[in-house]
Amino acid sequence: MPLRSKDLLSIEDLTLENIDLILETASSFEEVFDREIKKVPTLRGRTIINLFLEPSTRTRTSFEIAGKRLSADVVNVSGQGSAVAKGESLKDTAQTIEAMSVDAVVIRHWSSGSAKYLAELIKPPVINAGDGWHEHPTQALLDLYTIKKEIGKLTGKRVAIVGDIAHSRVARSLIAALNKTKAKVTLVGPATLIPMDIDKLGVDISYSLDDVLEDVDIVYLLRLQKERQSENLLPSLREYSRLFGLSKARWQRLKNGVRIMHPGPMNRGIEIDSFVADNEKALIREQVTSGVAVRMAILYLLMGGAQVE
Amino acid sequence: MPLRSKDLLSIEDLTLENIDLILETASSFEEVFDREIKKVPTLRGRTIINLFLEPSTRTRTSFEIAGKRLSADVVNVSGQGSAVAKGESLKDTAQTIEAMSVDAVVIRHWSSGSAKYLAELIKPPVINAGDGWHEHPTQALLDLYTIKKEIGKLTGKRVAIVGDIAHSRVARSLIAALNKTKAKVTLVGPATLIPMDIDKLGVDISYSLDDVLEDVDIVYLLRLQKERQSENLLPSLREYSRLFGLSKARWQRLKNGVRIMHPGPMNRGIEIDSFVADNEKALIREQVTSGVAVRMAILYLLMGGAQVE
Amino acid sequence: MPLRSKDLLSIEDLTLENIDLILETASSFEEVFDREIKKVPTLRGRTIINLFLEPSTRTRTSFEIAGKRLSADVVNVSGQGSAVAKGESLKDTAQTIEAMSVDAVVIRHWSSGSAKYLAELIKPPVINAGDGWHEHPTQALLDLYTIKKEIGKLTGKRVAIVGDIAHSRVARSLIAALNKTKAKVTLVGPATLIPMDIDKLGVDISYSLDDVLEDVDIVYLLRLQKERQSENLLPSLREYSRLFGLSKARWQRLKNGVRIMHPGPMNRGIEIDSFVADNEKALIREQVTSGVAVRMAILYLLMGGAQVE
Repeated sequence: MPLRSKDLLSIEDLTLENIDLILETASSFEEVFDREIKKVPTLRGRTIINLFLEPSTRTRTSFEIAGKRLSADVVNVSGQGSAVAKGESLKDTAQTIEAMSVDAVVIRHWSSGSAKYLAELIKPPVINAGDGWHEHPTQALLDLYTIKKEIGKLTGKRVAIVGDIAHSRVARSLIAALNKTKAKVTLVGPATLIPMDIDKLGVDISYSLDDVLEDVDIVYLLRLQKERQSENLLPSLREYSRLFGLSKARWQRLKNGVRIMHPGPMNRGIEIDSFVADNEKALIREQVTSGVAVRMAILYLLMGGAQVE
Repeated sequence: MPLRSKDLLSIEDLTLENIDLILETASSFEEVFDREIKKVPTLRGRTIINLFLEPSTRTRTSFEIAGKRLSADVVNVSGQGSAVAKGESLKDTAQTIEAMSVDAVVIRHWSSGSAKYLAELIKPPVINAGDGWHEHPTQALLDLYTIKKEIGKLTGKRVAIVGDIAHSRVARSLIAALNKTKAKVTLVGPATLIPMDIDKLGVDISYSLDDVLEDVDIVYLLRLQKERQSENLLPSLREYSRLFGLSKARWQRLKNGVRIMHPGPMNRGIEIDSFVADNEKALIREQVTSGVAVRMAILYLLMGGAQVE
Repeated sequence: MPLRSKDLLSIEDLTLENIDLILETASSFEEVFDREIKKVPTLRGRTIINLFLEPSTRTRTSFEIAGKRLSADVVNVSGQGSAVAKGESLKDTAQTIEAMSVDAVVIRHWSSGSAKYLAELIKPPVINAGDGWHEHPTQALLDLYTIKKEIGKLTGKRVAIVGDIAHSRVARSLIAALNKTKAKVTLVGPATLIPMDIDKLGVDISYSLDDVLEDVDIVYLLRLQKERQSENLLPSLREYSRLFGLSKARWQRLKNGVRIMHPGPMNRGIEIDSFVADNEKALIREQVTSGVAVRMAILYLLMGGAQVE
């Protein structure tokens, strides 16, 4: 297993060599997408459990397609109606899954640390598909893959991550990934949504999108959870949008060659204007395509599949 | 692609030649159902998304089985827990699906026109599995297939469609299909459930089932949505059943050779008596079998599969 | 079909020879689990419907994995959003499923007798995955398989089944299975949860776990449904746990070689102490592994698959 670890739990755990290996493997899988038969037999006869205890069609579908393109059998387990809903502990769910001779588990869970906990309990590889506010490493890897493919090396590139940093596992994983690749990260958002001590991570902080707009190479917009308003962390969605939304006017001030990214699903009209979302500077679709390729690479590398054909 | 169109959105779009091609292709697929291995390798390595934003186990299962019998990978996406539920626009869902290099999308949606909208947004074929009150073309095609198989040519045949015409996409698609095949259509139901100007479609209208009973070759009963009562469009279910239900007494007055159809799920005791539903004149099971064959044909024709083996 | 019956509905229906055949077949399938490719082509091109009208991720997943390891196409149908939810009768659901040329139906249903009713309506094999308070035969078979594998012949072995016997299909099936294999069964629980006339089945009854603890070879703990408390069948969960829970103290009084079983999901701290659940005497994981093997055997034997390779 060339990743030297059983699981993919966080970006923190990965070396730069690990990341490069994942991205290169993803690149070879992406070539398969242009074929009529988008399928390789590498994981035939293996079983992957997609354990989504927090709903996410987008990520679940991406992993399901990735697994099926590797010829694995993919079994979806959701929170609804599951033993977990009946009060079963994650420990017992884990042991049940392991006892079914499953070959890998993809887990999305509302609780930070749950993927690591699962990984310690069972022998098959565990892939973190988002655990609470902790990490969402496959999202960060697909983002890196997309950036490298579209604009090349990241070293020295300026990336603004805009929005609710405090409650975003996407941001946590992306910051870790960008730091490893020596990009320069600026976090942008209202003070209520940026953790106090996050500058320890070696990132810049700005409370004004307008201040950083002209200096960045990539604007990465986070989805604003509308719940933040009722939690009194935001004056109003309109206010947020006015200050931190990427409007057409702000978009026009961006440097040439700047690319816009968003992990989806987008709140059009809040963090991103529809014009911006649909414009050619946006890499949002490319991120989705990268997602399938990167997840194929991770499943392949962790599950030790046969050679790609 | 011999259908000359990328998508299957409505019966209106199809020529009589298109319809014949679909029905003939379905016929060759239905032969596979008697084999031990009910599977052909024509769509191996292709991915079909079953996007059911309005629940329908019957239609979803039919498409899922159809896709799997063609050896495609079928990924189910429902409304619950999906990005759509999080407020994502259909446009963004569409672009996400397309970006995953999907080969076809089957969509069921509560909103009329949504299938067409989706088809305009993405390159892969879109198949309308029911959009609001607009159309449900695969239902009409499986109905035509069933009729042709059971009683032969439709030209000149008299078909009564009975029930809630106003709110029925099944009726809309079926009227269009029957008109193309030169059958004679009579719509039967209470005045509150028949649109005022529907005679423009070249159909007869009757507010009495008893008046038409002895003249028809096919009685097509629509499912009565019980909500119609609370919307004050019906005096009561019992009243509806007494006037428009196909009771045993009415059934006895039918001509020899008349066939009874229903798209399911049936409200036994409301629009159809249990005796009638289970009697040999009923083609209700045959409709379900036809459904899988017709959907295989449509997936095959739109996705340009390899030759049937 | 070597089982001489079309369906698997209850343990009562099976001869000892039937049971032996199932367990031997399961044993040959379990060997496949150690291979890299855990899949045999025996049911390629067959369609299995997993009709779970009562939710159960554990059993559904076990059947889904079993079907896929036999190379069948498995289509999940749940109660939510299904035609059943729209008020369709089980009869119509059955006929719809049959009309889709399905090769087997696995049914979980809240109503006792529903599996038998379905089996009478349709030609393909029906497998009862739990019907109301009636039976859960595959659970009993996987339990027998586990016991035989771990401790050998059952004749004369003493098995205590502890908990809510009255509302447990697991208990009903297990009692029938143990009786056939000439094990000695003692039912243990509060009088409110043990049916009055159950001694007719040839079992002993005890209202004290402490009384039987030192005599048994197997302690089979049932899941306590917390609803029993609100139904006034239990004074409190704590009281239940104090009297009938397998605590560490009770566990220490067990004979050498005693094994602990539980069908899952467990209520740790109620019917079973966490120490006991995780201890080597527990066969709880082995039961899950057995479940996949036994269900593969049942699907294979009823569906008449090609030879195991």
